[in-house]
Amino acid sequence: MANSQPDNDRKSLEQRERMTDLERLRHSAAHVMAAAIAKLWPDAQFAAGPPVDTGFYYDVDLQHRITPEDFPAIEEEMKKIIKANLPFERLVVNRAQAIEDARRGRLGALSDRPVPSKFKLDILEGIPDSEPISYYKSGDFIDLCAGPHVMRTGNIGAFKLTSVASAYYKGDANNPQLQRIYGTAFKTRKELDDWLKMQEEARKRDHRKIGAEMGLYIIDPEFVGPGMPLWLPKGAVLVEELEKLAKETEFAAGYKRVRTPHIAKEKMYKTSGHLPYYAESMFPAMELIEGEMAGEQDPSANQGAQSAAQSERYYLKAMNCPHHHRIYAAEPRSYRDLPLRLAEYGCCYRYEQSGELFGLMRVRSLNMNDAHIYCTPEQFADEFNAVNEMYLKYFKIFGIERYVMRFSTHDPARLGEKYVNEPELWKQTEEMVRKVLKASGINYVEVPNEAAFYGPKIDVQIWSVIGREFTLATNQVDFAVPKRFGLTYRDRDNTEKTPLCIHRAPLGTHERMIGFLIEHYAGNFPLWLAPDQVRVLPVTEAQIPYAKSIVDELRAQMVRADLEFSNDKLPGRIQRAEQDRVHHILVVGQREQQSETVSVRIHGKGQQGVKPRAEVVADILAAIRERRG
Amino acid sequence: MANSQPDNDRKSLEQRERMTDLERLRHSAAHVMAAAIAKLWPDAQFAAGPPVDTGFYYDVDLQHRITPEDFPAIEEEMKKIIKANLPFERLVVNRAQAIEDARRGRLGALSDRPVPSKFKLDILEGIPDSEPISYYKSGDFIDLCAGPHVMRTGNIGAFKLTSVASAYYKGDANNPQLQRIYGTAFKTRKELDDWLKMQEEARKRDHRKIGAEMGLYIIDPEFVGPGMPLWLPKGAVLVEELEKLAKETEFAAGYKRVRTPHIAKEKMYKTSGHLPYYAESMFPAMELIEGEMAGEQDPSANQGAQSAAQSERYYLKAMNCPHHHRIYAAEPRSYRDLPLRLAEYGCCYRYEQSGELFGLMRVRSLNMNDAHIYCTPEQFADEFNAVNEMYLKYFKIFGIERYVMRFSTHDPARLGEKYVNEPELWKQTEEMVRKVLKASGINYVEVPNEAAFYGPKIDVQIWSVIGREFTLATNQVDFAVPKRFGLTYRDRDNTEKTPLCIHRAPLGTHERMIGFLIEHYAGNFPLWLAPDQVRVLPVTEAQIPYAKSIVDELRAQMVRADLEFSNDKLPGRIQRAEQDRVHHILVVGQREQQSETVSVRIHGKGQQGVKPRAEVVADILAAIRERRG
Repeated sequence: MANSQPDNDRKSLEQRERMTDLERLRHSAAHVMAAAIAKLWPDAQFAAGPPVDTGFYYDVDLQHRITPEDFPAIEEEMKKIIKANLPFERLVVNRAQAIEDARRGRLGALSDRPVPSKFKLDILEGIPDSEPISYYKSGDFIDLCAGPHVMRTGNIGAFKLTSVASAYYKGDANNPQLQRIYGTAFKTRKELDDWLKMQEEARKRDHRKIGAEMGLYIIDPEFVGPGMPLWLPKGAVLVEELEKLAKETEFAAGYKRVRTPHIAKEKMYKTSGHLPYYAESMFPAMELIEGEMAGEQDPSANQGAQSAAQSERYYLKAMNCPHHHRIYAAEPRSYRDLPLRLAEYGCCYRYEQSGELFGLMRVRSLNMNDAHIYCTPEQFADEFNAVNEMYLKYFKIFGIERYVMRFSTHDPARLGEKYVNEPELWKQTEEMVRKVLKASGINYVEVPNEAAFYGPKIDVQIWSVIGREFTLATNQVDFAVPKRFGLTYRDRDNTEKTPLCIHRAPLGTHERMIGFLIEHYAGNFPLWLAPDQVRVLPVTEAQIPYAKSIVDELRAQMVRADLEFSNDKLPGRIQRAEQDRVHHILVVGQREQQSETVSVRIHGKGQQGVKPRAEVVADILAAIRERRG
Repeated sequence: MANSQPDNDRKSLEQRERMTDLERLRHSAAHVMAAAIAKLWPDAQFAAGPPVDTGFYYDVDLQHRITPEDFPAIEEEMKKIIKANLPFERLVVNRAQAIEDARRGRLGALSDRPVPSKFKLDILEGIPDSEPISYYKSGDFIDLCAGPHVMRTGNIGAFKLTSVASAYYKGDANNPQLQRIYGTAFKTRKELDDWLKMQEEARKRDHRKIGAEMGLYIIDPEFVGPGMPLWLPKGAVLVEELEKLAKETEFAAGYKRVRTPHIAKEKMYKTSGHLPYYAESMFPAMELIEGEMAGEQDPSANQGAQSAAQSERYYLKAMNCPHHHRIYAAEPRSYRDLPLRLAEYGCCYRYEQSGELFGLMRVRSLNMNDAHIYCTPEQFADEFNAVNEMYLKYFKIFGIERYVMRFSTHDPARLGEKYVNEPELWKQTEEMVRKVLKASGINYVEVPNEAAFYGPKIDVQIWSVIGREFTLATNQVDFAVPKRFGLTYRDRDNTEKTPLCIHRAPLGTHERMIGFLIEHYAGNFPLWLAPDQVRVLPVTEAQIPYAKSIVDELRAQMVRADLEFSNDKLPGRIQRAEQDRVHHILVVGQREQQSETVSVRIHGKGQQGVKPRAEVVADILAAIRERRG
């Protein structure tokens, strides 16, 4: 189950313990913001206020409806608190004291109040007896908080409030709706300014905006359903080109393609362990009544059919691995058959809460660049290394210069609980992965106690050209599930052994990858990816046959070329081609026709001069073939 | 909804009225068989005995369990009846008389019997008062039968009993299980012998047998579900090559590819009209409870979310058209945008009774070579003609020499009932189709009163090289559904009009097409399709580097080439390559290495001699590129 969709907004307690310096600073900024709001609106009731990837937020229940017009006033108060350079004092209290303070409205507040701190009371109830209850106090503002914080409010270098949204308390629609105020904070003014600039650029490059402008995809919540993009012709070009890239690359790397249905029986997912534990992320079952009618083709199949009507549950697949495991299981395997690399651009369906859906970045239908590599322990290092090489190859093609592989390992203390109880296999595979990562000189960080249940994993993070981070894919080493499916191979020593399985998806999903690429290229795709690769513009009607012969020559080579002639003047047609983001704009007038040349213009780069037709065609074909950036 | 799976076994009353001469003959043979069985086992109770594509059958309830060992005795009795050249006499009786005769056990029998003719009594009840009740009598044998029959038993030229199976009365598992005895009959001995030979050849070429031998696909009823093939690596090659062919052909023909999800909301299929009428052919709904959680990304989406938890039904798509219609509807269209040809190799799911599933030929998951052409009436003829041309192009590639297009038209008497009530559109489109078919010289027959509800259709029938008939695909002209989806275009005269839609799928489904191709080629696919295209066999270890350089050169061009070296002697390795149906077997020994040549062997065709390496490589690439047969 490679490439799960990341969930950056929720931090586990463990992650909180390992809060980075920046997160600590932002967490403190959230407190300062709360103090400022409490000063301006003393009836404010605060819920939770964590740091997030983009800064921080605090959820607040308040009579006044906060809008961006209120931000300057809040920021003004915040500045005062920061200027005062107040210390963050940690106080450990007993439960009775905390409940008493919350009842007096004293938590998330500057003073006692006539009504209790209702959310803090509720949060208190959730804290187990085994854990300490702590406050953080800065000036008069006291908050129930596990910390940690910076030393003093003055350590918050630069901050800015960014937006306000609404959110249910604890994300549950049965709870009250709160106002969520977002801000961000950095150590220095410069960092904040750079980030704001990047945000501005990202807004311009928003994949939803460019996707609509270019006609790449639509989402049709009314007829098809939310979170399930329909790829329009220009978007389908991107999909097809990515698949072509994957197929060529995987063919060269010795993968074998398979194709499997989009559904399977309940038994499949009970065997894999996804049911019942993963059920809430899957679409609900289809309940089919089978066996009303006896088979006529095969008389032997009729035995007992009279009592055979029975109900079967089918599920949309949320991952491709179980289907691939069944293909592995379809025939006896020997060590000589391994490594077996089964690849499929499989379409999976996952149920994401409708409120969490976001353009192409968080979806319900996922077309995944999936493959499963079944191998012996001796083959593991080479296979794992080859997967990494494939990532690097793709990064080069897409001009991705900044990336990191987050290598998540297990915690021996939690074997048999958070992690499958195979201490030796954990040690071995983690050591193998670590060795490969080190030897290959790849950029990675090791994160303890974040592995998957059934093996170590690697989350691949990449940065777009404007510096925004994306989680592209997750690779996993799996030494547990093949056993559940009874997968084996006969080894040299004639014993049956369970293969290791590497789940990998270097191009992630079409949805996320294309979302990333739209931002990365601002929609100005390189020639090989561009939905409109070439447009030929005859200056006058007389050049139409010449223009058409160029279009035909290119289209015979599967180049997406078209011809535009209309009553519009040439400059208008060139402008429209630029607006359409056509990569190569070839203008042919009388002179070009006579000399068998074309005047070349490249989208965003302007005039390239007049060149021989044959040279231009050869250049275009080579640039596409080599997938030049 | 192109390419519905044909249902050859059930004949409607209308079809019965148009029984062909051969069907009439076979129907009579069924009676003769029943008379023979009644002679041998007087307790036989007959149910229904129609002609079918492969001959005829009769369902019988009988103490004795009939096996193929009984066939000679039955055939002996049948020969006597045929030799006696008895007339088939039609008797029209009133209901009271018929019930009386059935009670006396006289129907489907040679004489009165102690027990009633129970199935005939039941069938009698189903005959409406408006229809005549008739018997057919030949010799002493009397049967309840609507006819028609040949004049005399001697008109049955040649016959043979072929198999026995079991079947529930009326196909319902709640009814008693009967013995179904199959036979076939022809006008002449020669026709029968040819047919038997073809059957024998077809058995050898059975796609399920060859599919298993070659490792093309598996069906996994336990984990995935019946009727849903998983394509193994070698089968996935066939799938990918067919898609490549379709994509290249459709690109050249100006189609635009799209990609759509595999599910949609109930509203989609209510709008298309598939729900509720087509519901029993669809997988059951997935019922999703939406709206438990408010959106955080887009605050405006939260309006009223507190009361928004609601149930939505999602369905697996059984056809791609509605998704394509929604893409059409996604932006305003003008006559200048038409024809718009949206193509997708979409995977659909249809619920077929488990007893009707058959290998790749009748399945539940269908990967369809689908496209929908939206056009104006003026464009229709050209578009329709281009579709036909595409069929002919494919027939040529696959060496399909015999085909027929069955053009099904409406019946004006049944407008508003069996056919959408648009008399003018029916006339126009049928006339357009007829004109194109005539002008193109394509082989077609016109079949009245078999159109689809929403427009005329064309079923494409092809014959494999051994003479067996397959229904490949159905094309439909649709002038009703685009209106249901509110699809329009702005015409020259500035009014909004509804486009015509052509549903077409020249390559049918992967499942059926590959099932056909396996039989057609007996698994010995042409080079471009062959799962194993090239195997290079070094005679000794010393030639491994040379062999590898050839494999590498070919694989760099995406040729499926591999190298086999083992301790086995060369003849053994050649034999294995032949068994594996490797198309090109290239043997390289010392002499070949020194002279940069290879010894070429083609699967099933033997030695081709020693040729220069460069020539062989170029030949292979050209044969693949040109898809030579």
